[in-house]
Amino acid sequence: METNRKVIIVGGVAGGASCAARLRRLDEGAAIVLLERGPYVSFANCGLPYYVGGVIPDEDDLLMVSPDLFRRRFNIDVRVLHEATAIDRRRRELVVRDGATGGEYREGYDALVLAPGAAPLRPPLPGIDLPGIFSLRTIPDSREIREWIAARRARKAVVVGGSYIGLEMTENLVRRGLAVTVVDVLPQVMAPLDGEMAEPVMRCLEENRVDLHLGDGVTGFEADARGGLVVRTAGGASLTADIVILAIGVKPEVALARAAGLEIGELGGIRVDESMRTSDPAIWAVGDAVEVRHAVTGRWCLMPLAGPANRQGRVAADAICGRNARFRGVQGTAVCGIFGMTVAMTGASEKVLKQHGVRDYEVVYLHPYQHASYYPGAKRMHIKLIFSRPEGRILGAQATGEGGVDKRIDVIAMALQKNGTVFDLEECELCYAPQFGSAKDPVNLAGMVAANVLRGDMPAAGWSGLASTDALLIDVREPFEFAADHLDGAVNIPLGDLRDRLAELPRDRELLVYCAIGERSYTAVRILVQHGFRAGTLSGGYVTYCGFNP
Amino acid sequence: METNRKVIIVGGVAGGASCAARLRRLDEGAAIVLLERGPYVSFANCGLPYYVGGVIPDEDDLLMVSPDLFRRRFNIDVRVLHEATAIDRRRRELVVRDGATGGEYREGYDALVLAPGAAPLRPPLPGIDLPGIFSLRTIPDSREIREWIAARRARKAVVVGGSYIGLEMTENLVRRGLAVTVVDVLPQVMAPLDGEMAEPVMRCLEENRVDLHLGDGVTGFEADARGGLVVRTAGGASLTADIVILAIGVKPEVALARAAGLEIGELGGIRVDESMRTSDPAIWAVGDAVEVRHAVTGRWCLMPLAGPANRQGRVAADAICGRNARFRGVQGTAVCGIFGMTVAMTGASEKVLKQHGVRDYEVVYLHPYQHASYYPGAKRMHIKLIFSRPEGRILGAQATGEGGVDKRIDVIAMALQKNGTVFDLEECELCYAPQFGSAKDPVNLAGMVAANVLRGDMPAAGWSGLASTDALLIDVREPFEFAADHLDGAVNIPLGDLRDRLAELPRDRELLVYCAIGERSYTAVRILVQHGFRAGTLSGGYVTYCGFNP
Repeated sequence: METNRKVIIVGGVAGGASCAARLRRLDEGAAIVLLERGPYVSFANCGLPYYVGGVIPDEDDLLMVSPDLFRRRFNIDVRVLHEATAIDRRRRELVVRDGATGGEYREGYDALVLAPGAAPLRPPLPGIDLPGIFSLRTIPDSREIREWIAARRARKAVVVGGSYIGLEMTENLVRRGLAVTVVDVLPQVMAPLDGEMAEPVMRCLEENRVDLHLGDGVTGFEADARGGLVVRTAGGASLTADIVILAIGVKPEVALARAAGLEIGELGGIRVDESMRTSDPAIWAVGDAVEVRHAVTGRWCLMPLAGPANRQGRVAADAICGRNARFRGVQGTAVCGIFGMTVAMTGASEKVLKQHGVRDYEVVYLHPYQHASYYPGAKRMHIKLIFSRPEGRILGAQATGEGGVDKRIDVIAMALQKNGTVFDLEECELCYAPQFGSAKDPVNLAGMVAANVLRGDMPAAGWSGLASTDALLIDVREPFEFAADHLDGAVNIPLGDLRDRLAELPRDRELLVYCAIGERSYTAVRILVQHGFRAGTLSGGYVTYCGFNP
Repeated sequence: METNRKVIIVGGVAGGASCAARLRRLDEGAAIVLLERGPYVSFANCGLPYYVGGVIPDEDDLLMVSPDLFRRRFNIDVRVLHEATAIDRRRRELVVRDGATGGEYREGYDALVLAPGAAPLRPPLPGIDLPGIFSLRTIPDSREIREWIAARRARKAVVVGGSYIGLEMTENLVRRGLAVTVVDVLPQVMAPLDGEMAEPVMRCLEENRVDLHLGDGVTGFEADARGGLVVRTAGGASLTADIVILAIGVKPEVALARAAGLEIGELGGIRVDESMRTSDPAIWAVGDAVEVRHAVTGRWCLMPLAGPANRQGRVAADAICGRNARFRGVQGTAVCGIFGMTVAMTGASEKVLKQHGVRDYEVVYLHPYQHASYYPGAKRMHIKLIFSRPEGRILGAQATGEGGVDKRIDVIAMALQKNGTVFDLEECELCYAPQFGSAKDPVNLAGMVAANVLRGDMPAAGWSGLASTDALLIDVREPFEFAADHLDGAVNIPLGDLRDRLAELPRDRELLVYCAIGERSYTAVRILVQHGFRAGTLSGGYVTYCGFNP
């Protein structure tokens, strides 16, 4: 099995480090060089916000595998502070700059793996380079942020960008005692989620005294007289801050690949085939720098996630060693914890489907408890399930809540991976004891509700059509619930009275039924439909209408 | 859609109540009678131990749906304290005793659903009927246990049977301040688990000052002079107690079905087809009283679980209404929480496979952290994955740990349901942020380790063969780890030194390599195999050998 192949890997974090270790396990005879521009390999970049917040107290905790361990255990030639500056594809040589000496040298390869990652976006706005404006990518970045906060006794922060890293940084800055304003050009936080699913996240942020400044873009930064910063927005706002965090996304690092003439995709990532091979058969690329196929939409996308990067590193190593390996694409499974709330998703969002012109799908909402309601501490979670019509294939799921959210998304992610349908969710068999779940787990319920729609047992109407509907709205909650709040024009007929009051209802008009969460309205619709009425439900009930406000 | 069919359901808890509600949703015109022998329908039987322990403070919390709500919302004729005493199959009539009046009457049916559940086993041992010996099935049972403990100021309990209910009762009795001894005829607790997986559970019980008296059967009970009880065992032990809980399992309630001549299976449960129909085409049966097909082994089994009971109730309702419905069998997914530890499993255990003569399977152990090790609070879980050889089809998984255990078993349960393989687990895409998981989630790792075995990359040896092996044992941990403890006869060559010390190793002898958890030994075996040695690993490392003692 021994070979004498020489493999150079550019980038020593997730995908690069995984690739290096896997290569060694497969090929004891290869010469493996791992180049890393920064001072560390294999560090925990997903932990950086928590290091800023002091949850992870020690910088050393972020170092997962040391260069020395790579050398000793894996016989890998690790060179930190070495940057690849050019690829000589014809000669199969890499030009490397030694950061310590400033000197350049050439290193030949049989196979080259590019794992350069993605760089935080820093748009060329006025003042963007002022001191106190930080991005977060590396350990030194996070160290500088900590030092700046300490040295300036920072009290106020503006976080530009309200997605995963922005919100994780927000939580950690609040943890350090800073007052935080989140600015985002979108009218919602957590951009990968559909807008309505972000509502409870925004409410949670506000409950934790985070100011939200949404639907407004940053136009520039200025230094103020106190030595602080002013963030200016298109909407005319001036937000003062002692520190600004830029978290508006990342951009694949493709300078090296582009200069070498490798194919770059339309989204700006390195283009690779299923074995992670670039347009040059001797060069592979993995991680945040590449474009990948989305498992649901089949489209190219950029998906900077650690899990897929690791898998890609392994696939590239397998391919280099002549094994039959294939990257199956990304699902976009992701999770974020914010002030005790969990936000998670897998698959395609509704907005992504719309963007790609997909129309043959259905959506249901539900608000089940994370475990048996009779066991103390049960809290509602909010789930949106998206599935194809008429097959019921799972296309995506999003959920928020306080506990058990990541579990349900993970189960649905596995079902999606296996081309599962909502009918599979309906009959899945999951752990049940009262502190862990329910006899009908939230995943079962999601499947049941969706299957009811597909089987025609529960015609569902979207909330978006509510403004323009001619239907008669029927609120089947109890009178005390109706009295507290209800939809304009709705008639209150509690479910228990419905059979006795059918004569009051028009047979020539559509009936749209709702309750609190969609459970009673389902039974009501079943009654109405069987008695010959045209009836449907508003999915997920009044809780959905109110932005998942229980 | 309206019919005039009359359906009687015998038993109003999980399967029966689900069946009734589903029937009504499908058939507004049916007459539905729900008979329940006890005083309550649809109560939370899985919550009973927690009501005994006071975690669920109020008895009313256990009542999920009242008879009145069944009547008002579902137009179901609920009759509590009504017991079916005979089935007149020829006339399609049920004989019912009204517990309140003592009178009997006949009720005709078009379709009959039997959901009588299972009764706690009470073997005819001397003294079994003494006061203070309780089983736990109903709300009155749990109320009596609470009252007995309070009235007798009970200090010591013996729990006979160390499986789910026995251990949940143990935890809750300890919570109430009782000293508990668990007696089981098996040498392990939690009988559905393979023995080695129960080791950490037993350790956890002992750490919580529960006495374990295992591998010894109870032979009888006596009253002692103080008004307490003495539990006698075959091994000669006499255990004193103020209260005894019998939790040695349950037996399907088939008296009614048997007397009516319905087919009973070899395991003593009512025999049904895939639509839950009994040998009488007008009679269905669901829940703990029926035998079901095991989804992995294909064998009939008894599996008293709430989730499958609910699904069966729905299937029976669908079938009665002429829908094409099929119960896909049970996987045996189950979970138990004990003193902060979670124990969960899905699919077949190794002992069940052996019992059925299955031999073409492999087993791996792993001990991953439940989330990123660099994030505070990371604890190891212990996973056993069983899969077919050579296909890698998932046959079963068992896990214990402090957090995230139910999540991983649920994900594997979904993969198993979809006929997934270990290769699917290897490349599944799950939620990752450092407080929720790892870039290589425990499920990924389980898949990778298993796939390594199947691909021949990591020949694995079972620990059971250790006593008889001629192989040279190599411990690749660091010297300080080796010094603390190691296998007899093992040679210590730290992984980092292995390449330089290959000359010390024999080429004519098998090498069995281990480390702490199997990670370093995997790399070591890759090195050795590629250098021409015959080498394998001991799966899961020294932690596995030591009963998952980290």
